[in-house]
Amino acid sequence: MSDLDSVLELVRAFVRERDWDQFHDPKNLAMAVASEAGELAAELRWVKGEEADAWAQDPANRQRLADEIADVAITTLMLADRVGLDLPTVMRAKMEKNRAKYPVERARGRADSP
Amino acid sequence: MSDLDSVLELVRAFVRERDWDQFHDPKNLAMAVASEAGELAAELRWVKGEEADAWAQDPANRQRLADEIADVAITTLMLADRVGLDLPTVMRAKMEKNRAKYPVERARGRADSP
Amino acid sequence: MSDLDSVLELVRAFVRERDWDQFHDPKNLAMAVASEAGELAAELRWVKGEEADAWAQDPANRQRLADEIADVAITTLMLADRVGLDLPTVMRAKMEKNRAKYPVERARGRADSP
Amino acid sequence: MSDLDSVLELVRAFVRERDWDQFHDPKNLAMAVASEAGELAAELRWVKGEEADAWAQDPANRQRLADEIADVAITTLMLADRVGLDLPTVMRAKMEKNRAKYPVERARGRADSP
Repeated sequence: MSDLDSVLELVRAFVRERDWDQFHDPKNLAMAVASEAGELAAELRWVKGEEADAWAQDPANRQRLADEIADVAITTLMLADRVGLDLPTVMRAKMEKNRAKYPVERARGRADSP
Repeated sequence: MSDLDSVLELVRAFVRERDWDQFHDPKNLAMAVASEAGELAAELRWVKGEEADAWAQDPANRQRLADEIADVAITTLMLADRVGLDLPTVMRAKMEKNRAKYPVERARGRADSP
Repeated sequence: MSDLDSVLELVRAFVRERDWDQFHDPKNLAMAVASEAGELAAELRWVKGEEADAWAQDPANRQRLADEIADVAITTLMLADRVGLDLPTVMRAKMEKNRAKYPVERARGRADSP
Repeated sequence: MSDLDSVLELVRAFVRERDWDQFHDPKNLAMAVASEAGELAAELRWVKGEEADAWAQDPANRQRLADEIADVAITTLMLADRVGLDLPTVMRAKMEKNRAKYPVERARGRADSP
């Protein structure tokens, strides 16, 4: 079982034990993803871009950052699972589209593409 | 190699080939996660909660939903990788905290906890 | 002086007194808007759509909702002011575009348009 | 009538003519705010902080930025109006709280406070 599969088992058990499936319809979970993404953005809003890598390594920030990244990922995994999508599969399919949308020769080093 | 590891290889190659590391500091990526989460929210904003599961299964919506979920997950994976965090590891650690924060006996079936 | 103009004066004085202009470049403020919008979304993520109006009138929620709405509005006003845009003016101009984009005869009562 | 009041009249007429009140419950509107905030964040995600002011003045970007700021403000105004809150009033009340929360002597010039 891959690492993400084992996390998915944890997440499913967590939700089932708390009887939270009733709250986890796809709309509510999409809204939860947005709110977790907002918390992640909050961490970095006043950090300068050129100092953000160092900021992320600073022990004073690193655990909070890890938790916020995890919250976005967990909520996104909950949503994918709720609607019956395998997260790595849809990620791989989207990367195919991204490669087609941003051909190397045209996108290379261009700030308007990423 | 787990499924997510193989996606991570795709993502790293994609960024490297386009020389986009220069744009992908943690602040920019956190902002990108917020914008992708906003696109995901846009898909479901007018859908009724009780119709959201059926909406997600409708072929007219399913591919778009899969793409938006994937975009959030890909950008979050890029951010975790940039700052040197293993995504499944931080997700598992956060699930531990969530279990402690929401004990079954207190959180069960309560809309104010999830 | 209109009501919003007087709020703008409060906001400008608040920022100036704290010497926060240095943090309030347009990128940081856009990120702050996203994070405040995430906090607003957090308030309503588990509320059922058909119960959301009553939820918003409940004294247990109303003050928090008012504060979150205000935070989004204040941060957006800060951003508009920073880049030299008058908020009511750009809102009015955008409403013109919205009217053109969603003609009454085509958009009326359609959940896929709003 | 203040400038914002006249915008509110435009917004109310726009919604009424399209019979969109049925979609505009507070939950849906909060989700719409998050999605508009995500679009605003998307505009600035790859812009460097120190170039963001110049970027915002560049005619190539300025209209798009104005539209995105307006969308956030319009959706927030719709939400405030739906739940019976006067936007300038809640903004002023929140600014009072902000002043108390961030006393000048402690917050002045500190990146961890704004």
